[in-house]
Amino acid sequence: MENNKNTIEVCFSPRLYEDRLTHENFIVVIVDILRATTSICSAFDNGVKKIIPVASLDEAREYKKKGFLVASERDGIVPDFADFGNSAFNFMTPEVVGKTIVYSTTNGTHAIEMAKSAEKVVIGAFTNLKPLAEWLAAQDKNVVILCAGWKNKFNLEDSFFAGALVESLLEYPNFRLFCDSATVALDIWKTGKENMLGYIEKALHRHRLKRMGLDDVLEYSFTLNSTNVIPVMENQHIININKNEKTE
Amino acid sequence: MENNKNTIEVCFSPRLYEDRLTHENFIVVIVDILRATTSICSAFDNGVKKIIPVASLDEAREYKKKGFLVASERDGIVPDFADFGNSAFNFMTPEVVGKTIVYSTTNGTHAIEMAKSAEKVVIGAFTNLKPLAEWLAAQDKNVVILCAGWKNKFNLEDSFFAGALVESLLEYPNFRLFCDSATVALDIWKTGKENMLGYIEKALHRHRLKRMGLDDVLEYSFTLNSTNVIPVMENQHIININKNEKTE
Repeated sequence: MENNKNTIEVCFSPRLYEDRLTHENFIVVIVDILRATTSICSAFDNGVKKIIPVASLDEAREYKKKGFLVASERDGIVPDFADFGNSAFNFMTPEVVGKTIVYSTTNGTHAIEMAKSAEKVVIGAFTNLKPLAEWLAAQDKNVVILCAGWKNKFNLEDSFFAGALVESLLEYPNFRLFCDSATVALDIWKTGKENMLGYIEKALHRHRLKRMGLDDVLEYSFTLNSTNVIPVMENQHIININKNEKTE
Repeated sequence: MENNKNTIEVCFSPRLYEDRLTHENFIVVIVDILRATTSICSAFDNGVKKIIPVASLDEAREYKKKGFLVASERDGIVPDFADFGNSAFNFMTPEVVGKTIVYSTTNGTHAIEMAKSAEKVVIGAFTNLKPLAEWLAAQDKNVVILCAGWKNKFNLEDSFFAGALVESLLEYPNFRLFCDSATVALDIWKTGKENMLGYIEKALHRHRLKRMGLDDVLEYSFTLNSTNVIPVMENQHIININKNEKTE
């Protein structure tokens, strides 16, 4: 019966997370395409061992003093104590392989923090779309897709990804649409999917990155299924639970 | 210059109103297609003199004791003390002509309350779309379209209307898109505009109304430009400032 299927719900902003319809038995997918969740997938794809997401810069600085590698950005600026910033390219260097990285960003880690009471929290990006959908389908739980947005505002790229994930999940028989947000996200995706980079030209944040010279990573961020990683939260850390990743 | 144009911004939920980019020199358009803003336009089109929006049922009950006509609904249910509910059809009877009506609903009056510190607050519906756009273009202010949603959740019908209004405003040279929400609202509208009632079949609230037998007003709610009314807030009341309305 249709009502026995697991629900798919989309929150277009962290502000809308507390109003979600689903309150039990759910997995949260965190989405911050530009840039945290794309970067986290990139990190694991390149052999990072563990990521410790922290919400505040103070916390990140404390970890740095203890000798951890720290990745951080605020509004596109890398704090002076951090080892590198938030671009997916920063996580592709030999120095990160096998390491634990402490990670704090403008939007992404805030969303992760907010979702941590859910049964499971997983990281979603275009680069791991299909493996993620397959893994979610195997969990037999309701899915809440939480778009990190930009400082709590709706943003186009995260909503666009939410629609892509909705479409991929609906290919499995155990899911159903559950809210208008998911319905609309799917329409957004269908509007732009044939020309992803062209569609994303309309996004404000894409231009924000361009102004700051941070848009070199754009094409990579909108590449579908380049990795098999499934980064999930476990004991306040993010690890990759997919044993089929390329680099280990 | 493009940056000298007035901005158009969309808030998909009251929860997102405080995060809006525009904080000065703006007019708020309240949108609650099913049903408050459609009903308010209907009321003025049918000769209602004034509407007093109140957020709480207690306040509505007090007005009733003083002899006012009271329209109210909570989750589609009309409280026992109210004269009638929230359907646009309730405001088309001879008994309301020339009257002041006290009005409290699930979502719409909450959004009105939230917006009241803006320079101007105006009521938008498909039924007054073009006259509203024309009036907004004449004001030379930034526009924030505030979707009432359903209990703070994103909803399809209000976002669909937001897109229609964005399209109508962009026909005037003094407006520019300002946020991803407005960009996406426009795409939603373009996806569904050729078959409005077909598109809105996907909306959850449309089915909520159907289950309660309250969906008779659906076709009316998605009729374009059937009235010239421009309902605006003035001293905590809503009045119609368009002198070209049909019934006076």
